[in-house]
Amino acid sequence: MRTRITELLGIKHPIILAGMSWISEPKLVAAVSNAGGLGILAIAPLSPEEARRQIRETRSFTDNPFAINAMLINRNAKEIVRVALEERVPVINYSLGRPWFIDEVHAYGGKVIGSIAMVKHAIKAEELGCDALVVTGFEAAAHGADPTSMVLIPLVDESVKIPLIAAGGFFDGRGLAAALVLGAEAISMGTRFIVTKESVVHDKTKQKIIESSELDTIYSNVYDGLPGRVLCSPGSEAILKTGPMEKAERYRRIEQSVYHGDNEHGFIYTGQSQGGIKDIPPVAELIDNIVAEAEKILGNAPRRYRI
Amino acid sequence: MRTRITELLGIKHPIILAGMSWISEPKLVAAVSNAGGLGILAIAPLSPEEARRQIRETRSFTDNPFAINAMLINRNAKEIVRVALEERVPVINYSLGRPWFIDEVHAYGGKVIGSIAMVKHAIKAEELGCDALVVTGFEAAAHGADPTSMVLIPLVDESVKIPLIAAGGFFDGRGLAAALVLGAEAISMGTRFIVTKESVVHDKTKQKIIESSELDTIYSNVYDGLPGRVLCSPGSEAILKTGPMEKAERYRRIEQSVYHGDNEHGFIYTGQSQGGIKDIPPVAELIDNIVAEAEKILGNAPRRYRI
Repeated sequence: MRTRITELLGIKHPIILAGMSWISEPKLVAAVSNAGGLGILAIAPLSPEEARRQIRETRSFTDNPFAINAMLINRNAKEIVRVALEERVPVINYSLGRPWFIDEVHAYGGKVIGSIAMVKHAIKAEELGCDALVVTGFEAAAHGADPTSMVLIPLVDESVKIPLIAAGGFFDGRGLAAALVLGAEAISMGTRFIVTKESVVHDKTKQKIIESSELDTIYSNVYDGLPGRVLCSPGSEAILKTGPMEKAERYRRIEQSVYHGDNEHGFIYTGQSQGGIKDIPPVAELIDNIVAEAEKILGNAPRRYRI
Repeated sequence: MRTRITELLGIKHPIILAGMSWISEPKLVAAVSNAGGLGILAIAPLSPEEARRQIRETRSFTDNPFAINAMLINRNAKEIVRVALEERVPVINYSLGRPWFIDEVHAYGGKVIGSIAMVKHAIKAEELGCDALVVTGFEAAAHGADPTSMVLIPLVDESVKIPLIAAGGFFDGRGLAAALVLGAEAISMGTRFIVTKESVVHDKTKQKIIESSELDTIYSNVYDGLPGRVLCSPGSEAILKTGPMEKAERYRRIEQSVYHGDNEHGFIYTGQSQGGIKDIPPVAELIDNIVAEAEKILGNAPRRYRI
């Protein structure tokens, strides 16, 4: 399935692994890139040294393109991005700030993708020179804004010319088909990739996500200061009552859920798409099935992705 | 465009006018039904006498099928529904309660459509004997729940066998195409029909909606006790601060916006779809354009709506 996104990024399938801190680590990133999608390595919470190590490790696992993401409001964002540029990471995805590095990335042949959650930020990111955008709907894990994917994708599509990656609410081929129909040219999935064989997330937490419905998320700014969505659990409900915590404590709570399967005390960011997740497939099988399902639904429709 | 919904309801186009109190009155309902969609007459806030008068008036304007809606938690719901059954309204749409009237409606050849906003309520409504469902996403005006259309439509589709009408976030042919691809067989639109030539809503309020973006809604339970979405305006923002009000005062504030175009003091329920609304077309032209756009996008795709 060729789209402007697959062409731009040099990938086979229009499917992106969201850059989830703690979760989108070298093995999962490489699994997605090796399967023909684009993995985004989550380096935001890492030290520059660890970021460099993980970039190199990812490269040792795959010859295909991959990305890193950077949250530009973070104190260490400049250092982290510097490492990614030195390592000439093929795709730089950023959010929450002004990208000062676009020319430099283009100079080594890389691409820059901005993550946005409202139309005005999409227009600004295009003006600044982004090559593509991740359009994040309200249903996404962690940090979207109020507009949902159904509304935001067509509105952004008619406001900018660069191609769009739809994020928020996607877990299968119906969603990929809908995203294409609405004007996007790829989907980004986080929660769906958490629940795969290659994912580092603890089995107990994968199982908890499978058992949770579309209703079992909490949207609040208590978890890290930004409005975001987490899995409903005793751990996340307790934090909702006790209020914000220090960064070190937050990291500890996330690791409890991600690495140790402890959702009595820990928490994990998930999206409403969890309601559609019922199995733990290998990454390549998941991607192949999603693309096949979307192809079957759309058939020979003369939609835009036929470039 | 034939679907199980067009077949079930005996209509030409898979497009429904949401039953918006004060707004979905006989002329607008008839305009939609005459254009080949299904208008839903909003009788929830009316007296039984006024409900009967409006049902008869609607019938005088159109020979095509139309519906009424009833909020079953309302004190006068039993009386209101009784009037609709006596008048043998072709389609009864209900929300927020247990429908006791399904057999009676079926006995005169009518159909019953339940409105739901989560999977478990969809399953229950099918068990009770509903003929179809309105699936309301978070992006809708007034009363949805947290799950968005992108997530909720496929999850409900795989949980029930009866056909679905997708509501929340729809304003054009891209949305209709996406809804079909996700498993629905029609769309319901409210805000988009508010901003049409035939709509009784004051021009100033139509213009205010056109000028508002996808960000300019407020989601709160302060307006009527249920979580719901309204247009962001000085009037709605003031109520958010002052808190809940009596029913009579609420009705007065809604009429200020709907009939008098006063959004300094009044308020109106709108959905995020307002971000995509830029003109005031006649109803028939709007419906024709949406269907034509969806047909063009989907082409000969072998999707389910080809029955």
